[in-house]
Parts: sequence; C-alpha cells; structure tokens
Amino acid sequence: MKAVVYKGPRDVVVNQVPDAKIEKPTDVLVKITTTNICGSDLHMYEGRTNVETGKILGHENMGAVIEAGNAVQRVKVGDRVCLPFNIACGFCENCERGLTGFCLIANPGNAGAAYGYASMGPYSGGQAELLRVPYADFNCLVLPQGAEEKENDYVMLSDIFPTGYHATELARMQVGDSVVIYGAGPVGLMAAHSAAIKGASMVMVVDMHKDRLALAEKLGAIAIDNSDGSCVDQIMKLTGGHGADCGCECVGYQCCDHTMHEVPNLTMNNLVKTVKPTGGIGVVGVFMPEDPGGRDELAKKGQLAFDFGQFFTKGQRIGTGQANVKAYNRQLAKLIAAGKANPSIIISHELPLDQAAEGYQHFDERKEGWTKVVLKTGS
Amino acid sequence: MKAVVYKGPRDVVVNQVPDAKIEKPTDVLVKITTTNICGSDLHMYEGRTNVETGKILGHENMGAVIEAGNAVQRVKVGDRVCLPFNIACGFCENCERGLTGFCLIANPGNAGAAYGYASMGPYSGGQAELLRVPYADFNCLVLPQGAEEKENDYVMLSDIFPTGYHATELARMQVGDSVVIYGAGPVGLMAAHSAAIKGASMVMVVDMHKDRLALAEKLGAIAIDNSDGSCVDQIMKLTGGHGADCGCECVGYQCCDHTMHEVPNLTMNNLVKTVKPTGGIGVVGVFMPEDPGGRDELAKKGQLAFDFGQFFTKGQRIGTGQANVKAYNRQLAKLIAAGKANPSIIISHELPLDQAAEGYQHFDERKEGWTKVVLKTGS
Amino acid sequence: MKAVVYKGPRDVVVNQVPDAKIEKPTDVLVKITTTNICGSDLHMYEGRTNVETGKILGHENMGAVIEAGNAVQRVKVGDRVCLPFNIACGFCENCERGLTGFCLIANPGNAGAAYGYASMGPYSGGQAELLRVPYADFNCLVLPQGAEEKENDYVMLSDIFPTGYHATELARMQVGDSVVIYGAGPVGLMAAHSAAIKGASMVMVVDMHKDRLALAEKLGAIAIDNSDGSCVDQIMKLTGGHGADCGCECVGYQCCDHTMHEVPNLTMNNLVKTVKPTGGIGVVGVFMPEDPGGRDELAKKGQLAFDFGQFFTKGQRIGTGQANVKAYNRQLAKLIAAGKANPSIIISHELPLDQAAEGYQHFDERKEGWTKVVLKTGS
Amino acid sequence: MKAVVYKGPRDVVVNQVPDAKIEKPTDVLVKITTTNICGSDLHMYEGRTNVETGKILGHENMGAVIEAGNAVQRVKVGDRVCLPFNIACGFCENCERGLTGFCLIANPGNAGAAYGYASMGPYSGGQAELLRVPYADFNCLVLPQGAEEKENDYVMLSDIFPTGYHATELARMQVGDSVVIYGAGPVGLMAAHSAAIKGASMVMVVDMHKDRLALAEKLGAIAIDNSDGSCVDQIMKLTGGHGADCGCECVGYQCCDHTMHEVPNLTMNNLVKTVKPTGGIGVVGVFMPEDPGGRDELAKKGQLAFDFGQFFTKGQRIGTGQANVKAYNRQLAKLIAAGKANPSIIISHELPLDQAAEGYQHFDERKEGWTKVVLKTGS
Repeated sequence: MKAVVYKGPRDVVVNQVPDAKIEKPTDVLVKITTTNICGSDLHMYEGRTNVETGKILGHENMGAVIEAGNAVQRVKVGDRVCLPFNIACGFCENCERGLTGFCLIANPGNAGAAYGYASMGPYSGGQAELLRVPYADFNCLVLPQGAEEKENDYVMLSDIFPTGYHATELARMQVGDSVVIYGAGPVGLMAAHSAAIKGASMVMVVDMHKDRLALAEKLGAIAIDNSDGSCVDQIMKLTGGHGADCGCECVGYQCCDHTMHEVPNLTMNNLVKTVKPTGGIGVVGVFMPEDPGGRDELAKKGQLAFDFGQFFTKGQRIGTGQANVKAYNRQLAKLIAAGKANPSIIISHELPLDQAAEGYQHFDERKEGWTKVVLKTGS
Repeated sequence: MKAVVYKGPRDVVVNQVPDAKIEKPTDVLVKITTTNICGSDLHMYEGRTNVETGKILGHENMGAVIEAGNAVQRVKVGDRVCLPFNIACGFCENCERGLTGFCLIANPGNAGAAYGYASMGPYSGGQAELLRVPYADFNCLVLPQGAEEKENDYVMLSDIFPTGYHATELARMQVGDSVVIYGAGPVGLMAAHSAAIKGASMVMVVDMHKDRLALAEKLGAIAIDNSDGSCVDQIMKLTGGHGADCGCECVGYQCCDHTMHEVPNLTMNNLVKTVKPTGGIGVVGVFMPEDPGGRDELAKKGQLAFDFGQFFTKGQRIGTGQANVKAYNRQLAKLIAAGKANPSIIISHELPLDQAAEGYQHFDERKEGWTKVVLKTGS
Repeated sequence: MKAVVYKGPRDVVVNQVPDAKIEKPTDVLVKITTTNICGSDLHMYEGRTNVETGKILGHENMGAVIEAGNAVQRVKVGDRVCLPFNIACGFCENCERGLTGFCLIANPGNAGAAYGYASMGPYSGGQAELLRVPYADFNCLVLPQGAEEKENDYVMLSDIFPTGYHATELARMQVGDSVVIYGAGPVGLMAAHSAAIKGASMVMVVDMHKDRLALAEKLGAIAIDNSDGSCVDQIMKLTGGHGADCGCECVGYQCCDHTMHEVPNLTMNNLVKTVKPTGGIGVVGVFMPEDPGGRDELAKKGQLAFDFGQFFTKGQRIGTGQANVKAYNRQLAKLIAAGKANPSIIISHELPLDQAAEGYQHFDERKEGWTKVVLKTGS
Repeated sequence: MKAVVYKGPRDVVVNQVPDAKIEKPTDVLVKITTTNICGSDLHMYEGRTNVETGKILGHENMGAVIEAGNAVQRVKVGDRVCLPFNIACGFCENCERGLTGFCLIANPGNAGAAYGYASMGPYSGGQAELLRVPYADFNCLVLPQGAEEKENDYVMLSDIFPTGYHATELARMQVGDSVVIYGAGPVGLMAAHSAAIKGASMVMVVDMHKDRLALAEKLGAIAIDNSDGSCVDQIMKLTGGHGADCGCECVGYQCCDHTMHEVPNLTMNNLVKTVKPTGGIGVVGVFMPEDPGGRDELAKKGQLAFDFGQFFTKGQRIGTGQANVKAYNRQLAKLIAAGKANPSIIISHELPLDQAAEGYQHFDERKEGWTKVVLKTGS
C-alpha cells in the first residue's frame, strides 16, 4: 500500500510499504478514505521530536471497515468509521473512567497511545491506504447512514474538533461566558466553534495570521490581531478590564511573539493576565517534557518561567492534556448530523495522498491560505 | 482595647488601640474569645509582604456578638460566631457563585478581602479584644448551643480547616484515592484530616519536622520524612510506581529543600512528578505575584521554573487560590458537632493575647513542638 | 398607585392602592416599567390556590430604582433592574449555596418566597406602578447601559427564561443531546430556547395549540402536535425508538389530554416513556401538595399515579422545583446583550397596566395568539 | 458442576448441571470461591418475577480465573477476580459513559444485563462451581495479592457494597450531610457504611428488625426502630424539624408498614416527608414495571400513588436504578485493602453451596439473625 513515511526533518515521502493487516482478534482493518495533516504532525516534521525514521504518520483518520478480527462484535465490515487519534484498550483503570487519552495498556509504560506519533506506541499512522485499528469495538465511531456526504465534517471528529472542544471543557467554560482562545490554527478554530456551540456570549481568538483570523470571524468569533503584540490590551478592553471568564491555549511550546521569535511561556503568561480571577484555563497546545531544540536552558528541560504567583493570587485553574476523543465524538457527531456543527469550514486544501509532501511543506510554512489540509486516498 | 500590632519585620507588639466599632448598618461587633496565629501571618512577620506598619493582625477569629448594626437581621447579640478569614459582601458576581474568597466589592479593585492582612483591604485583624465584622449576616457562622465546649475545634473553621479541605477539593480528590500532601504545617495537617474524612484510602504527608510528622500520623496519615530529600522515591514506592491519585501544595513560595535553602519551584515540580497522569493538584500554599526578597530573578518576579512539559504530558490539572471558607464551614461545623472532625488536635500552645509576640517568635522559628498557637483574650 | 388586585376566581381588577415603600434599610423601591402575566398566575386566577383576596399580583418585574434604604450599597438610584421572582435573603443556608428559590428566611417556616404569589410570603406583586424589593443588593440584577432597548428581552430574566433554562439543567442536558419538552407555553418555549443555546442536537416540543407550536418551530425546535394523542409515537419515531436523551415538564398539575380533560399524571408518565434509560427529567411545571379542586382522590391529595416501576427500571432521574433565578440570570443577560438570546420572541401582546384584566382573561382562555402578555406602566 | 437452580416459587435446589464453558474469545471461565444470596434473589424466590424454571441463580460472585478466551488480554489465568453483577460490553454508548448497569449490547433490546436474574439476559448465575464471564477484560475486577484473606469483604464488591454506595451518590450526598436510609437489609447497611466513609455527619437507618438495626449501629448509624410506625417523627426530631439532607430507598416495591402489610408507596412518600427541601433521594430498592402479584390496581401496573406535589414544592430530586458497579468497585477495593471499609461485617452465615436452599429459606423468612448469607464452594 501507499503511505506517508517520515524520513527526517522536513522530509516526508509517499512510499510503497507492506499492507497493514489484522494482528489480533480484536482488530479491524480500515480502508482509509480521508486522513488529515495535523498541526502536531509539524512538531515531528520539523525535527522537534524523537520520532523514528520510517514511521508512517497520520492520526486523523476515517474510512470503511474491510475486515474484522474474530472477536469483534459491534463493528461490521462495511461500516464507515471515524477513528479517535488516541488508541485505547477500553478496560484499563483510565479507559473505564473515560480517560481514553491516557490508556495504560495500549502503550505499556506510558499513559496514552496514538497512530503514527512520536512516543505514542508502535502504531502506524493512517496517512496511507490501509490502517490497522486495535480494540476496534471500543475505538471505532460508527457513522450514520449517508455519512459520506459530510465526510469532511466527520473526519474532524478524529482529533481537532474534540480537541478544541476539550480545551473549552478543561477551561470549565459555562453557558454565557466570554472565552479567549490563543491560536487560530485548526485546533484554536475548533475551540472557537465549540465555545459558540456551547453558548459562549463572546469568543475572542488571538493570532497573527490574517487568513486564520478571518476564519475565526466566520465562526462567529472576534479576531484579536496580535501582529503588534497588543493582544493583552485588546482583550482587557473588550472585557471591561476584568479579563475573559476563561481561556484556551491552542498553540503549544513552539509559540512565538509578534516578532516571530519562540517565547515558550508567552501564551500561558498571557492567559494568566487575560483571564479573570477564579477563571479556568484549558491547555491543549502541546508542551514537551524536554525539547533539546529549545532556545534556552529552561526550554530544553521542558520548563516554563510561569507567573505562578499571579496565577495563585487570581485563584485560577489549569487543565491540560490530550483530548479523550471518545468523551466527545459521539455527541459532536450528532451535531454534525443535525447540521449544527460544521467543522469542515476550516479546510483550505484537499489533496490526493500522493501530494502529501507538498501539503506538509506549505502547511509547515504557514503559507497564506493553507489553514487545513485533508488527504484523499483514491477509490 | 488591646491588639497585636505589626511594627516591622519580626516585630509585633500588643498595644492599646482605639476600640473597634460598628461602622455600617450591616456590621456587627464581636468580642473575640479565641484568635489564632496563622502560618500565613509569618509571611508578614518575616517582612516578605508589603503590609503597613501599625496594622492589627489576625484573621482566624471567633467570639461573641456584642452589638449589631440596624440592618442586621439573622445574627443576634449573644450569638457565638466563627468568622471566615475572607470578608465577603454576599452579593457580587463572585460571592453569589460561592467564590467568597474573591469578593469584588469588599476590597475594591481586587478580588478578595480579609481581616488584618497585606493587600486584602483596610480591615483590622482580630488578634485583639474586639473585631468589627462587615456584612455580618453573610459572614458570621453562628455556632450551635454549647459551642464553647469545642471552642478550639470551631475556631479552626475560620481558616485552616476549610483551607486544608479546599486543597483536597482543588485536587479533585475522590473517595478511595491516595493523596500526597506537601507540608505538615497546620494547613497541610488539616488537608490530611480532610482527606481522611472524605474517604481517602491512603494519605501521605511530606515534611522535615518530626513533631509535625508525628501529628500527621496521629491523623491517620503516612509520614514521609524528607530530611534526606528522598520524598519522591518514597511516594513512588508507596504507590507502586504510579504516583498518588492527587496531591496538595500546603507550603507556598517560601518552600525549602532538605538543606533548608529556599527553592520556590520544589514542591510544585515534585507534585508533577509524584501525582499520576490525569491527577489533580490543589494549591493553597501562598505564592506571591512578586517577591522582592526572593532568591533569584524568577522568584523576584513571582515566577517559577515549572515543569510544564511534564505537567501537560501527564494531563494533570491544577487548582489554586485562597479557600472560599463559606463553601465548607457549615458542613465542617456539623462534623465537629458530631465528633467526626477534631481539628484542635494540632494545637500545641494556648497563650493569652498578651503573649502574642512570643507565640509569633517561636512559631516563626518552627521551634520544636510549636505547631499551632491559639491566643485567648481574657474574659 | 395603581395595581392589579386579586378579587376572587377569574376576577382581577386594577385598583388604586397605597404606594409601595421602603420598609427596611436593605430595601429598594422600584418604579415598574414592565411586568408580565405568568402562566402560574393563572393557577391563582382560576381559583386553584389559596391566595388571599386583595393580593397584588405579579412576579415578573422590571423597572428603575427610585429610592434605596440606607444599608443598600451596590444598587444605586437610577439603576435599571430586573427582579428575580424569588425573594431571597442571600445569607441563609440555602441562599449561600445558590438555592435562592428555597430561601429559609424571607418566608419564615417555608422554603422560598416570591412577589405576589400564593403561599410565598407577605410580599406584594409588581403588576403595579411601584414595587418594594427586599434584600436589594442581593436580589437586583442591575442591567447594562442601554438595556431599555431590549427591555422585553431582559424582563424575561425575572422568571420564564431562567425557569425554562432550569428545566434543562434539572434534566441534566448535555451538549449534543436530544431533548423533549412537554408544553409550548412560555416556560416550555424558553426551555426550548435554552436547549438550543446550550447545544442540543434536537429539540422536540409537545403541545396541542398551533400558535404555540409555530413559536417552537421559530425557536428551532421540532413541533410535536399532540392533538390526536400520538405524541409518544412521534417522539419514539424521531429518536429511532430509543427515546430522547432527556426531557422537561413545563405544564404542571393542570395538564390535559388531547380531549382536554385534566389528567395530572399524563406528562410525567409520558416523560418516563419517551426519555431513554438513564436519561434525566426536569420538572418546572407546578405541582401542588394539595388540590381541593382536583378531579379525583389522588389529585386532591397532591398525588400522582406515577409509573415508578418503569422509572426505576430505566434508571432515570428527576429534578424538580422552582428555578433559582439568580443561578442563571447574570449569564443569560450576557447572552441577551450579545444578541445570542432573544426571549422576547414569544411575546404576543403588550398592554397598558390598565388592561391587565383583559390580558388575564384571554391568556387564561388560551385564546388563539395569546401566548405571552407583558404589561407596561405609563411613564 | 453443581449449581443452585430455580424450580418455582420458594423452591431452589442444588443440582448437577453441565459445566459452564468459554463461548466467545472474549470470555473467561471462573472457578467460584464465594457467591452470595442477594435480597433481590428473594423477589425471584418468592415468585414475584417472570424468571424461568431451570435458571441458575447468583449474581454476587467471586473466584479464580481458570481459562481465558484467545482475545482476552488483561485478565490472566490464576487471577482472583470479583465480578460486577452487571454484565457489560464496555463499548456501547452507555458503557463508554460508565453506565455499565444499562449496557445496550449484552442483553439486546434491553438496557442492562446480569448473571442469573429475571429479564436480565440469557446468562447463568454464579451460585455454582463455575461461571462463564463475558467481556472479561472489561468486567473482571482483578484483586490484589493476598485478597484471599479478605475474601468476604471483596465479594461484597460484586453488588451490595457498590449498590449501597450508589444510593448515596444518587442521593447527591455531600460531606457533612445527614442521611436517612430506609431499610437495614444488606443494601441499606452498605449505604450506611458508604455514607460514613464519605463523611456524613449523621446516618439514620430505618427498619423494624432489631438484629439489622443492631448492625446499623455497629456501622456507626443511628437506628430508627419503626416497629410502631413512628419513623417520620423520629427523623424530624433528630434533624431539628428540617428533615435529613438526603435520603436513600433500600427496600423496594415489597416494602411493608409496621403492621407488615405491603404498602408500595410507603418508603418513597416517607422519603419526601423526611428529606429537606432541595434534598436528594437515591433509590436502589427494586421497583418493577409490573407486578401481577401486587395488592391493588396501581401496584399491578407498577405505579405508586406518589406525593408528587409535595416532592415538587420541596424541590427535591430523585435518582434511581441499578448500580453501575464498575463506577465504584475499584475505589472501594482500595478502601478494603487499606482496612478502611469492612463490608463483611454484615455477614451472618457462611454455608457450603450444598446448603443454599436452607440459606434461601431462612433469609427469605427474615429469620432472626439471618442478615446475609454467603455460599462457599468446596476447594
């Protein structure tokens, strides 16, 4: 089969590789129809992770089941399925409490597994023609009849829509709240979409890219253009000097100031400043336990110079971590089916799988207009 | 009246000062019977805050109502009352949601007011013979008949018992959890007591003072003696290598390593290490937005070099801030009345108000056996 | 002043009565600008309560503060305020937990007080030119500048919008849920509006009046016309045979079947049938502890023949009771200000206060097109 | 193998039957060591259900794994396991939210499956030498090393301890609450034990059997002897006339008044009376959708004459349904291991499996001293 393979920093290729196949009786095999490039794939692409050469990438996957292991009961050959990026066993201490992003069994010795990702277990990604799906009865979201018509919406349930939603949950957002979201990348935009669906009274999205800010406005948010570094002032003014009721970090450890230098503690300290006392902060942008390529000693050790004194005095709360996709994907699917959620609005490019390398390159460059790339495998 | 007055670093005296009195129709005047010295008073005592000279200290107060403003309806002259350290109006946006530690009206321009404390408004403290209590119908916890017999238990409802309890709430502790608590000072001990009351399966308390650790054991906890800096190893061993289900920070910005040097990020980074993935961390030890007396540049700015990458990867959560005492004091009072909570167990010294200076000095020295000092005003 | 006075069954008049005035230092006096007739006023109007003759009615009130008691601190003369129908002290055991609908002090011996209502304390209503507002700092929702332009939206915060919202909270509605609402009266319609704001995937509203069902559709809901008694079948079909995720009772003890006979247990048993196993049911329609005018022995005693066995087997939950308006009105006000909530959409008639009797009569008759009546006092 | 077989009303026998065996790759086979007779078994025993003749009874089961299907990954041969009475797939819409008592797959067409129980699917019970456990990786609670020493405690995790705990959760019990529990049978006693563990300030248990009330006292509760029908008065007196903060129904549809006549609505209406306004009521006693053997027309239809008007006016909430055992068993197991929970305290009789019929008979007679019977299979 064809698959997107990591060769080294800023080097991915579409190669012929051995077909994915059923390995355990609880697996299914999925013929991929749509698979996305995620912003977090760029951490690997840029050489800022320890991912091994030869890894098949891709954790935002959707397709049709073409074979099922003999212990699979619920999922049937022919089902259209969307796969959460987290691979979860369904029966460990964390999974049984719904913490599927922190499965203790799928990636032994760690909490959390995923397809095609650094440090997330021995699983191949889905930027390929075929994907092996472990613990299939637990992991597959079986889509309703006619799902093909909204394929580009449903595929967003694999990661970025639930991840954006998770940000608002970690931030403890309530109906009627004002919300400030740092980052208008795909996840930040999905956080904005989620906040609107959940009844926010005001959604502010901070970024420096005009194309992304335009999408934020299309989703009903107020765009906060930080090209001049004035985001804190803008937010305080919009909130009457009180700060937002809650906030979301959707950028991660490679965040940059308005002069485009990496300043890893920038978004977190700005959140402490621009969220009101007692407000919640949800962090879904990725921060790494160590970052040998970081700019200074703290960064290399995975530390931030964090305004903890201010954070404590304001009595704020932080929730972090990868989204437990299964906690949200079923309910969000109902909203897509009902036409009340439209996550595909952010897609800028549909490319055939063969052009994946081009997609990676332009998305990594934050090239004007390249906001979200989906890859289509041929029929 | 007599009152404990702050004169400067490590200098408090008991002086004659003008009597406290009713100033607004919603005030009551309380004759203090018991008032405690709090660990957070020591931040002022040591000159590590901006508290003004002449301030009457004391925010852990209990007594009898001797006069009531003409708008007071619920509280009656003669009532025995325990006063939450936070002064709250009862009707602002935060108070109406129960966030009485972050009242927006009692200390205009700030979120949160208190008796006798730096930056917490113009209110005198209760280490005195008389105390003015604003918004009395809202703030007074009226105690049941016969409360005098458990005076030393009930006075703990003013601060440290609810604050310790708050730590376990911020940590999202569940019945059956293992809990690690950093700090066996009065607040840490109250967190341990609270965790036991709430059904923890294992409570571990970390400290270096043997007298305090002995009290932790008396409260049913496992003492983790960190005199040799091995606390992380001890906790991981006790939890089968997984870390505790949740943890509490009850030390604050002046925390020290086992060589007794201040290392402000020590307890927080140890919490990240010793709490399991997805676990909660509750922070009630005080961290200051700025600390001119801090040991390095980060500390002076109120920043910590925080292991944010590890924190994110583990998907942990942090809750912070001063306790909303009223959220807990009524229920905890019922437990005291029923004999199911005994916070007075930690009291080491009862002194007359006149000996307050001595109490401050020895408590500040962490002198062996001086775990908690309560001051008694003569009748 | 002029006021709407209850004279007896189906007999209300607008009379001259003594002016309302400040009685306690914590009161304010409000000049009413808008005051609504509520569906629950009709229980009194129809003689199905024990309300005393001479009572001034009206608990959905809004206006401007013209005088304040000397203990009032937050609310100022000139403020535009909307008054929650529940009168709450702000400092009793229930109020401090946010249960302002069950205040233990405002109506001694009972849990809960209100303006102008049977059994809810000695308070006059606001269908009048002036209204005395007790515990004003706690009870007044001060509206933002320019609120006059959305007067008809904001007045709904006094009762029916928060009450409808409360129904969805009691029903434990989650984002993405399907919701079935029994009753398309003003409260049912506000429940539908709330469910949509909170991210329901499908809202179904059951009624027999076509004008009300048309409003439900205007609010984005699916109208379930029960004129032929087929509502259960319709709901089960729309939900794939599973039942709705949750449901709301917005009719109360005078509910009728499709032949217009009172069948008090009809909506509750239909809810048990049409809500899925484990689903929540929120009850805000009024049920009375006794109903001497009821149709049978059970009804007279305030009992229902309730399908408890089915309810238990399905593992459902019921939440009941009058809305704690203050728990919601501040957040809902933000949504009105932001143009994201439009509760005034249901108003059918604006009448001068002088025509209140006519308003009562037609609203009570469920006359075609009389869905919600607001009364305006002259300037 | 030997097994307890239902032959008809008040007729069970221990017969030789074909061995239980692995049927699907996700099954394990368990050699039973301990299996209890449950109060809910008596509904079948008394002929008050539709259970079929020949059914092997028993849903409170514990033992050792002796064989595992080839898709089982987590559970190993030799593991000591306790089996939740609910059989759950782990991957349906309800299971993934933790609602394992309402699995949609294990008992198709119904929500919820169990071992050896009427209407709960085609599964044999565990009052036998061997038990087939479906979806074993999900359903088995693997016990820690040395569990044999606390066998009689751990076996209670199969049903009654989590069920009693569930009652307190459904009742929304908070730390410091007073709780009233109707029924001092095994489930009621476990609710009392749970309430104490969770920090109740006062636990009251209502019953008419002195041996059971004595056990309640042993668990720290106040015994309310209802032999004279005065329980409501006693509870109101103990709670200062306010009613308990919350309450639990642990009796079910066969509840009797103090003259020992069945009065199905008695406990529920007493709960409404004796729980305070806004209080929660948790119902785990079984109520049946129909009861052909019921005493009157309402009972036959599974209806209660429920004081709904009073319930609504008080703003109470009811939660019902079978316990989702997996939601609690892991945490409760930690408390047993730590010696902080001792559910075996209620066991009155240990019998060999061969004497099961005698156990059923005496337990059904509520014979003095027969509070809980556990059956032991020979080695």
